[in-house]
Formats: sequence, structure tokens, C-alpha cells
Amino acid sequence: MCNDTYIPTEITVVLIDTRNPLNIGSAARALANFGLTDLRLVNPYDVAFREAVSAVGGAPVLQAARVFGTLAEALKDCSLVIGTADGQRRIPQHPVDRLETGMARAIGHQGRVAILFGSEKFGLSNEDMSFCHSLIRIPTVPETPSMNLGQAVAVCLYEMIRDGNAVPVQAAFEAPQGADAENITEMLREILVLAGFTNRTTASSTNEKVRRWVRRLRISHRDAPLVMGILRQILWKFGQR
Amino acid sequence: MCNDTYIPTEITVVLIDTRNPLNIGSAARALANFGLTDLRLVNPYDVAFREAVSAVGGAPVLQAARVFGTLAEALKDCSLVIGTADGQRRIPQHPVDRLETGMARAIGHQGRVAILFGSEKFGLSNEDMSFCHSLIRIPTVPETPSMNLGQAVAVCLYEMIRDGNAVPVQAAFEAPQGADAENITEMLREILVLAGFTNRTTASSTNEKVRRWVRRLRISHRDAPLVMGILRQILWKFGQR
Repeated sequence: MCNDTYIPTEITVVLIDTRNPLNIGSAARALANFGLTDLRLVNPYDVAFREAVSAVGGAPVLQAARVFGTLAEALKDCSLVIGTADGQRRIPQHPVDRLETGMARAIGHQGRVAILFGSEKFGLSNEDMSFCHSLIRIPTVPETPSMNLGQAVAVCLYEMIRDGNAVPVQAAFEAPQGADAENITEMLREILVLAGFTNRTTASSTNEKVRRWVRRLRISHRDAPLVMGILRQILWKFGQR
Repeated sequence: MCNDTYIPTEITVVLIDTRNPLNIGSAARALANFGLTDLRLVNPYDVAFREAVSAVGGAPVLQAARVFGTLAEALKDCSLVIGTADGQRRIPQHPVDRLETGMARAIGHQGRVAILFGSEKFGLSNEDMSFCHSLIRIPTVPETPSMNLGQAVAVCLYEMIRDGNAVPVQAAFEAPQGADAENITEMLREILVLAGFTNRTTASSTNEKVRRWVRRLRISHRDAPLVMGILRQILWKFGQR
């Protein structure tokens, strides 16, 4: 947990399955307004997003935005993943924090933090959420819970920079990077299939359960090689039979 | 200051000289998301704003929005007026609060509070600001200070509802309604012209000074009739000569 070198908080915004290029533009602008630069897009609908007109002032962020085919790829270097949900959706599998609580955790984290925003129509899918360590909710009213995407990004980033005097909290553990967590998830899945635990019909929900479970474990970056070594050994053993 | 009947805080959002109907739509949506209903438009560019597509979920707010020809008209029933400014503009004539300070004041106010947003390109004019009791600033970075209008509205309203446990502060005085303040301003202006204090070339800047000064005085609704009586008497006297 105690690194000799201090790893500052780095914030990444990830937009998943975004339909409307204007929303990508306004998200980019919000990043620029609050001094952030790292925008990542997973499977955006319209590759012409770089033309998005609402990104006045957000243009350099948009130029530098990277597109990924899968969420797992986009999260490889992220050690804390926070998903966003609108005010009314029931999410039984995950802890849901108030926005200020989740953002305080983000600020206090050492390493790269990803904040995920789902599509305009459906929000984050259950699979998207299985990559998250926690979820946050903007306290909108029950009658009109769903925010515009660009506005939701602005509100979340505002909350993060709001208290200029906030002292970063020492992270309680050095979280695994997304790539480690996903490698462990993959190996576990393979083991479960080989062990006959998972069959074709239940594979999808099991995969999500495993992914959530690995994130909840919070295996540190230092411990990840050990865990992976053990799993690799089990896989090798299965191959031996 | 002590009314027998409690006047709850009522929040009005006023958009001035808005050019882009999409921004009106997204402002309406932000009001709906945070449970507000009173949107007023002063001199919007495009009267087709009711069609604004981004107001998914904000439609009833948009349907009920009222259009005014002048800011003075729009503020008639408002006893606290707060203007918004972007992070970099110099505003020597006004106190500028951090967003959370300004919004705490709004929440604590008894009576109708108006929050003003200027045009996308120029923000609030000096004349618009002369109607304000105070200004607020969203803490954006110097490199990209100017926020998208819809996002700025969302961030301001979020800040207002953010702390659900906030105890309304007892207002220190019963502020004059906008109509009273503007009546007093008008009479003073007339007096200054009749007294030879104001000439044609300096009229505009003097008018703004007078308007700001009347707001700073914070003449209570109870005292307003007395002040207006005095001014009316002076005007009558001028007419006698």
C-alpha cells in the first residue's frame, strides 16, 4: 500500500455507446472547463464525432480522444472504475454512492480513475457495470431522473473539483490495474468452464458475476502476479488431464 | 424582516438573449431533473424554441416557459437576483461569490430568487448585471473558462440541491421585489435628469450605476412605499417649478 513515489489522481472519462456526436462534444467541453484531458470512447455510434459542434473550447480534448472497441481495452490502465446511474434505476448488485461520496473517493485514489457514462437511452449495461468498483448517482427527482449526457458529465466533474481545499485521502490499498483485473477474470472464467461450473446458457451472467467479484476483491497490483500464477497453474493442471 | 407567514425559497431561471434553441431545451431539462419548473426567457433569438429537441424529459418546463421583452419585466416578482459569470471575466462593480456561497444564499432566501444566464457568446451584459444583487462564478480553468449554457445551468442547479440537509438560513432582511427596486430606480433616474445630474452622453452608465446602487441598498418591501413616496414628492416639486 505504501509506494515510495506518490501516484497522483488521474481522471479519465469513458463514454460508452454514445449515439449523439453533440453529446461527445459537450462532454469534451466539460473536461476542458475543469482542466481534464483524457476522454475515451467505447464503440461510439458516429465516427464523425470529431466534428461535434458543441465542443467550443473542448476541441483539443476531442482531438486527443481515443476510441476503443471494448470497455476492457479502454480500462486497461485504470485502477478505480466508477459507473454513473440515473436516479431511479434499481441496481441490486452494486453499492451506489451519492455523487459527492463517490467523487471524494476518486480524488483520494492513487492511480488512474475512470468514470463511465452509458448510452443516452439505456445508460450503463449490466456488463458495463460489472467492470465498476462502485456506482454513483446524481440526485435527480423521480419524475425526471434521466439527465442529458453532457450535463451529467459536467455535474460529475464539477463535484470533483468543487472543494478546492480537499486534501487527497491516502488510498487504503494499491488497487489492481484494469488489465490485471481483467486477466484474472478471464482465467477464472476459463477455469469455471473447464471445471464444468459454467455452461453455455448461464455463461453471460456468470461472467458478469465473476468480473464484479474480482473487482470487489481489490487484489493489489503487487499481489496480482501471485494470483495469476496460481490460476495459471490450475489451468495447466486442467490441461494435463 | 419577520413575516408571520413563512415564504419558501422559489427559484426562477432566466435565460437572456439565448441564441441556440438546443441550449434552451437542455436548460429546461436541467430544471426538470432537479425538480424546478419556472423558466423565463428574455429576448430569445428563435421563437421556435419550444421544439428544442434536447429537452427530453424537460418538455413540460419548456411548455410552461414564459418569454419577456425586457429583463426588468422578467424580474418583477423576484427579490434576490443572482447573475452568473464565467471564470475569467473581470467584474469590478460587483461582489463575485464562489458558486457554493451564492447558492447557499439563494437557498436561505425567503421569496423568489432569479438566477440569470447571459447569451452563449457574450454572457451577461453590464446592464444585465446592474439588476443583480450578487454574481457567482463556476470555478472553471483559465484556459477554457466558458461553459456551455445548458451545462452551466445544470451545474448551478446541482449545487443548489446538492446538500439535502442544508438548513435554510433565515434571511437577514426582507428584500424588495424586483418591481419595487425598478420603480425606485426609474424615479431616481428621472430626478437625476431633471436635476441636471445626468446628460445624454452619460445617461447609460449612470442608469446602470443607479440600478446597482438601489440593489445594494436592499430597501425592504415594507419600506419601499415610503421611499417611493419621497421620490414621488421630489418629482412633483420639480414639476412645480
